[in-house]
Amino acid sequence: MSNDQILVKRVVLDVLKPLQPNALDFTRQLTTSAGGCQVKVQVVEVDSQTESLMVEVTGENVPVDRIIEVIRGTGATVHSIDEVEAENPVSDRE
Amino acid sequence: MSNDQILVKRVVLDVLKPLQPNALDFTRQLTTSAGGCQVKVQVVEVDSQTESLMVEVTGENVPVDRIIEVIRGTGATVHSIDEVEAENPVSDRE
Amino acid sequence: MSNDQILVKRVVLDVLKPLQPNALDFTRQLTTSAGGCQVKVQVVEVDSQTESLMVEVTGENVPVDRIIEVIRGTGATVHSIDEVEAENPVSDRE
Amino acid sequence: MSNDQILVKRVVLDVLKPLQPNALDFTRQLTTSAGGCQVKVQVVEVDSQTESLMVEVTGENVPVDRIIEVIRGTGATVHSIDEVEAENPVSDRE
Amino acid sequence: MSNDQILVKRVVLDVLKPLQPNALDFTRQLTTSAGGCQVKVQVVEVDSQTESLMVEVTGENVPVDRIIEVIRGTGATVHSIDEVEAENPVSDRE
Amino acid sequence: MSNDQILVKRVVLDVLKPLQPNALDFTRQLTTSAGGCQVKVQVVEVDSQTESLMVEVTGENVPVDRIIEVIRGTGATVHSIDEVEAENPVSDRE
Amino acid sequence: MSNDQILVKRVVLDVLKPLQPNALDFTRQLTTSAGGCQVKVQVVEVDSQTESLMVEVTGENVPVDRIIEVIRGTGATVHSIDEVEAENPVSDRE
Repeated sequence: MSNDQILVKRVVLDVLKPLQPNALDFTRQLTTSAGGCQVKVQVVEVDSQTESLMVEVTGENVPVDRIIEVIRGTGATVHSIDEVEAENPVSDRE
Repeated sequence: MSNDQILVKRVVLDVLKPLQPNALDFTRQLTTSAGGCQVKVQVVEVDSQTESLMVEVTGENVPVDRIIEVIRGTGATVHSIDEVEAENPVSDRE
Repeated sequence: MSNDQILVKRVVLDVLKPLQPNALDFTRQLTTSAGGCQVKVQVVEVDSQTESLMVEVTGENVPVDRIIEVIRGTGATVHSIDEVEAENPVSDRE
Repeated sequence: MSNDQILVKRVVLDVLKPLQPNALDFTRQLTTSAGGCQVKVQVVEVDSQTESLMVEVTGENVPVDRIIEVIRGTGATVHSIDEVEAENPVSDRE
Repeated sequence: MSNDQILVKRVVLDVLKPLQPNALDFTRQLTTSAGGCQVKVQVVEVDSQTESLMVEVTGENVPVDRIIEVIRGTGATVHSIDEVEAENPVSDRE
Repeated sequence: MSNDQILVKRVVLDVLKPLQPNALDFTRQLTTSAGGCQVKVQVVEVDSQTESLMVEVTGENVPVDRIIEVIRGTGATVHSIDEVEAENPVSDRE
Repeated sequence: MSNDQILVKRVVLDVLKPLQPNALDFTRQLTTSAGGCQVKVQVVEVDSQTESLMVEVTGENVPVDRIIEVIRGTGATVHSIDEVEAENPVSDRE
């Protein structure tokens, strides 16, 4: 069984972004790239030049790679992947 | 897919407002500008001239830009956008 | 759309009252003025002459102005409005 | 509208009682006086001569005055009324 | 209305018992005396000769007096009655 | 009524075990001895030679004596019985 | 009854892994090996060379041995087994 059948259901990313785009526009751009998903962005800390964000994306099949690409495209950095939840829908017993 | 299809479901704003209008009238004005939404305002701190508010608006399609405009129209300042939740209803798999 | 259509669903008031009327009679008077509402009064602090109360009124259409008037009529003071929740039932999308 | 239509749904009393009757018999006496209600008594502190109780009575129409009378009849003192919840079933809009 | 109609729904007792019988056998004996009830025993503290227990009995009609008798019959002591919940099923309005 | 009709629904044991068998094999052996039950083992502390476990067994009729026997058979020690919940299904009112 | 009938429902592992593969790829590999299961990986601590993970696998029949094998195959170490939940579906009363 290949990785292709694995469904990522939830990912939590620790992201550092410049002040522009603001959290609202940043969330809109992220959500545009994530068909069928819910996106939740919490601003954890604000500095003079940057904001630390907790980005949580949930859905039936979260496109994590595309999301990370979009985050980088806005000028932000994925500081770390904090949580990943995945499901293997094919029962394939020992 | 454009940003237009993205639905904002919840936004939390950190707002600094003068003592007038009071929290009740401020909430009424905000709610008037947010058709089909629930608005929750918590007074976090009261100073001699200003109040710090946590403003949370939830709904099927929260009009964030219009809400921010109304907040500014009352003489208050949006100190920061603290949380944004959005949904992409179109499933558009990788 | 005018403010008249806005429905206040919940309000939390910080109230300072003299020891008389006691919390039970005070609650009864408040509730009499709030048709169709639930009233919850918590005594937060008791001093020799006064009591600090957390007054929470919830309902489909909380008559906040009338409630504040009744509170003042008992000889008590509304120290601050701590929370307001309101709803705009008319969907009026951007 | 008179106070008579107001329904008290819950009351929390801070009570100081002598060691006799014990908490079980005290609860039974209180409950006897409160038709259709649930009574919960928590012993918060025990001293050599007295016990501090948190007495909570909930029901559709809690007879608070009769309950306070019964508490005094056992030799106990109502130290304070800590919480009152009431409802106004008649919708009487502004 | 007499006390006989009052139903005790829950009682929490603070009990000090010798190490024998152990908590399992002690719980079995207690439960045998409490028809139709659930018994929960938590060992709060263990000393060289004794154990402190939190004993909670819940049911439709908890036979508190018989339970206290059985506790004493095992050589244990009821240190205090910590909570009592009772219900008056007969609505007998003021 | 004899003790035989009493149903133990849940037991929590504080267990000290050698590092072998590991927590997985230990749980499997325990579960084998407990027909119709759920077994939950939490490793609370790991030392160089031993592990402290919180062992919780729930079921319709937990065979506590057999479980304790199996624990001892693995070389582990039941340090204490921390909680017991039991039920008396036969209503046998006072 | 042999161990073969025992169903492991949940396991929590404390894992130390090199930075590569990252948490997302690590989770995908783990999930591929666990047919019919949900896998949740939380990054607890990040050091210059390694990450500490809390790995939780839940399912109807978690293949713990195969999962531990896959973890080791990625270059990571199972530091400890922190929780195991298992069920014995065959009722086999004392």
